[in-house]
Amino acid sequence: MQILTPASYLTAQENRSGVFQDATLDQTVLEIISQVRNQGDQALFRYTEQFDQVKLDSLVVTEAEINEARQQMSDRFIQALKQAKENISRFHKAQVEQSWFINDENGNMLGQKITPLEKVGVYVPGGKAAYPSTVLMNVLPAKLAGVKSITVVTPPQSDGTVNPYVLAAAYEAGVDYIYKVGGAQAIAALAYGTSTIEKVAKIVGPGNAYVARAKKWVFGDVAIDMIAGPSEICIVADETANPRYAAADLLSQAEHDERAKAICITTSKQLAEAIQVEIEKQLASLERNTIIKKSLSDHGKIIIADSLEEAFALANTIAPEHLQLMVKNPAENVHFVKNAGAIFLGPYSPEPLGDYFAGPNHTLPTNGSAIFSSPLGVYDFVKKSSIIHYTKSSLLQASEQIVTLAEAEGLTAHANAINVRKGANDA
Amino acid sequence: MQILTPASYLTAQENRSGVFQDATLDQTVLEIISQVRNQGDQALFRYTEQFDQVKLDSLVVTEAEINEARQQMSDRFIQALKQAKENISRFHKAQVEQSWFINDENGNMLGQKITPLEKVGVYVPGGKAAYPSTVLMNVLPAKLAGVKSITVVTPPQSDGTVNPYVLAAAYEAGVDYIYKVGGAQAIAALAYGTSTIEKVAKIVGPGNAYVARAKKWVFGDVAIDMIAGPSEICIVADETANPRYAAADLLSQAEHDERAKAICITTSKQLAEAIQVEIEKQLASLERNTIIKKSLSDHGKIIIADSLEEAFALANTIAPEHLQLMVKNPAENVHFVKNAGAIFLGPYSPEPLGDYFAGPNHTLPTNGSAIFSSPLGVYDFVKKSSIIHYTKSSLLQASEQIVTLAEAEGLTAHANAINVRKGANDA
Repeated sequence: MQILTPASYLTAQENRSGVFQDATLDQTVLEIISQVRNQGDQALFRYTEQFDQVKLDSLVVTEAEINEARQQMSDRFIQALKQAKENISRFHKAQVEQSWFINDENGNMLGQKITPLEKVGVYVPGGKAAYPSTVLMNVLPAKLAGVKSITVVTPPQSDGTVNPYVLAAAYEAGVDYIYKVGGAQAIAALAYGTSTIEKVAKIVGPGNAYVARAKKWVFGDVAIDMIAGPSEICIVADETANPRYAAADLLSQAEHDERAKAICITTSKQLAEAIQVEIEKQLASLERNTIIKKSLSDHGKIIIADSLEEAFALANTIAPEHLQLMVKNPAENVHFVKNAGAIFLGPYSPEPLGDYFAGPNHTLPTNGSAIFSSPLGVYDFVKKSSIIHYTKSSLLQASEQIVTLAEAEGLTAHANAINVRKGANDA
Repeated sequence: MQILTPASYLTAQENRSGVFQDATLDQTVLEIISQVRNQGDQALFRYTEQFDQVKLDSLVVTEAEINEARQQMSDRFIQALKQAKENISRFHKAQVEQSWFINDENGNMLGQKITPLEKVGVYVPGGKAAYPSTVLMNVLPAKLAGVKSITVVTPPQSDGTVNPYVLAAAYEAGVDYIYKVGGAQAIAALAYGTSTIEKVAKIVGPGNAYVARAKKWVFGDVAIDMIAGPSEICIVADETANPRYAAADLLSQAEHDERAKAICITTSKQLAEAIQVEIEKQLASLERNTIIKKSLSDHGKIIIADSLEEAFALANTIAPEHLQLMVKNPAENVHFVKNAGAIFLGPYSPEPLGDYFAGPNHTLPTNGSAIFSSPLGVYDFVKKSSIIHYTKSSLLQASEQIVTLAEAEGLTAHANAINVRKGANDA
């Protein structure tokens, strides 16, 4: 891993392009979406044959397939899945919002009504990135929000089956429908509906570049969670950090993807060097070491900062998906953190604890978007409506001021809607 | 206004196109965004000359300009503005969220940290749609959220000035920076920054088709509130509704824009006919009656439903921005409403009350997006970070289950990050 200063790191990042435009990808994705809008299921079957190399008779995952998948699971796995489900549900319950009302002394009422989204679609990647934890993390908050209909779409394997761990997790989480379809075509189906797949109100879940781009395109016709990029970790460490742990955590991030980013910002040059040694040592025994090597060589950085303040300033600029504080008093340093998806405190809170088990969501803002967005949560699966009730006397008392504002805006029919209510002969 | 049945209304809506694609507009908007990214302020001056017909020396609205605008305001207007500000602030204070933590008996801590967005940009339209209420409704929730830097962008008039009502409202609301720039070029400046205008974390506020489209394009590199469409009202009325009031409310909606939608769904044929008569009567005296006539003739509908249940089912399908319940017991019927931006109860809660004065936000989901989105609120100006802190003994106790899940996903470096912490010689 390269060792840098904060300034040299920032300079290297300056020409980073955003998610703004990608003309080639856009053309492909738009064509796929249009075909699905026009031809429905027929387009889904065709794209599945083309991209997933399998000719399906039906998109539907049957109860028999789910049962078969569950029978392949070890008891140990099912127990771990159930414990993860319990932990995730417990944390997310604290996010459930209630409708509220304010009454004033004049009999007026203002309020905010919470309503669950009716139908939600969850994209679960296939292939090497088919993760049961994705299912739990995306479905359980929707269930707690009160969503009635949850549809999972996931690309089939070339034999026409779906990853059995994904099916087992979907069963545990209480998914309503599962379809064998992936890519931009699955996003189009959820956004606009086909004969088989019902249109949803919101699409969540991670995916490859086609999926992310399709989500950007359908956004507005349907809600989406976020446009997910490669996964990231940033460790802020002082001289008290254990280099074995830090190295293991950087390695675990790097195994996700060749584009994954593992960054350590430390005030200790000695730690930086010890981490480098530990990475080499641990790397040898790891299965995905080809991916890890590529990821660390392209995107892995150790940055030496002059002070913790400088380290946190850089971490806030990076706005990482995962931020680990391996410093003397982690809780006392949380206030320095402005931008991060999830903050892991201390030596015994490594990222995999959050990925699977602790309870908070693992769907987190990537690629610097923690500057403006939040982890997936129950709040993503509800919407609010304002409630306004005024009495006649309160409206009449406010009428002059409302009319003044309407007239300042040149909206005289707005003023008229107030003025007609001033008549004496009203019901 | 056309009188229809629910079925005939729905059939007519079927071919409605979404916000998905608009190739001509996209080409123009993408060109503008690219120019602003490449040339910064220079592009802003050029587009302002081209689109707003004014050659500016500076984009900055000075303190002197703000003071001059304020001196043009009547006391009556300033008083009404201050009262609106107070009401809006009072309602939105109830939306302010606190960070929270859960501690368990083993010393573990999980939490959700709330952090205000650092910088926010507010787009305020110019021309006929330059509204001081837009400023209050977009800026006050951001202030309450704790946003430190709020920038307003608004197109200049052809004499180089900005609407004085907008400036007066910006002063009252506590805006930090105001720039004379509008259109897609203003959105690009807020999203990517120029020498004069700082990049923001989120862009909110209404605008024309170019502004809406530019927001869709920059979304992902920066957060946006929503893609706003034309304004809508839907009145659900039974035989007890006053046709004068209903007519006035439909007219006030229609004056916004020729594309504005005014719809009344009623169980009473008699009311439908009385509303038609009232509309003709009141229309004559309204200033914007050319806009209103066009809007009502293109998009105004009175729909006769067999029952209130049928009326509410249709209203939920429409998912209107504004929903007025002019029925016998409005509060008892709120539970029928699933999809609406704001719900106005009873004869004395007309839409303009909410537009200016009552307190809830007037920035509401349009074009059916109330199915999945919410009014603008304090929650739009904060983001969340999860907090995870485990003790050594808790991590070790959970380690087998975490490793089981990691291995099921084939992520052995994740398992390694847990396993390295099992050693006995740790700090």
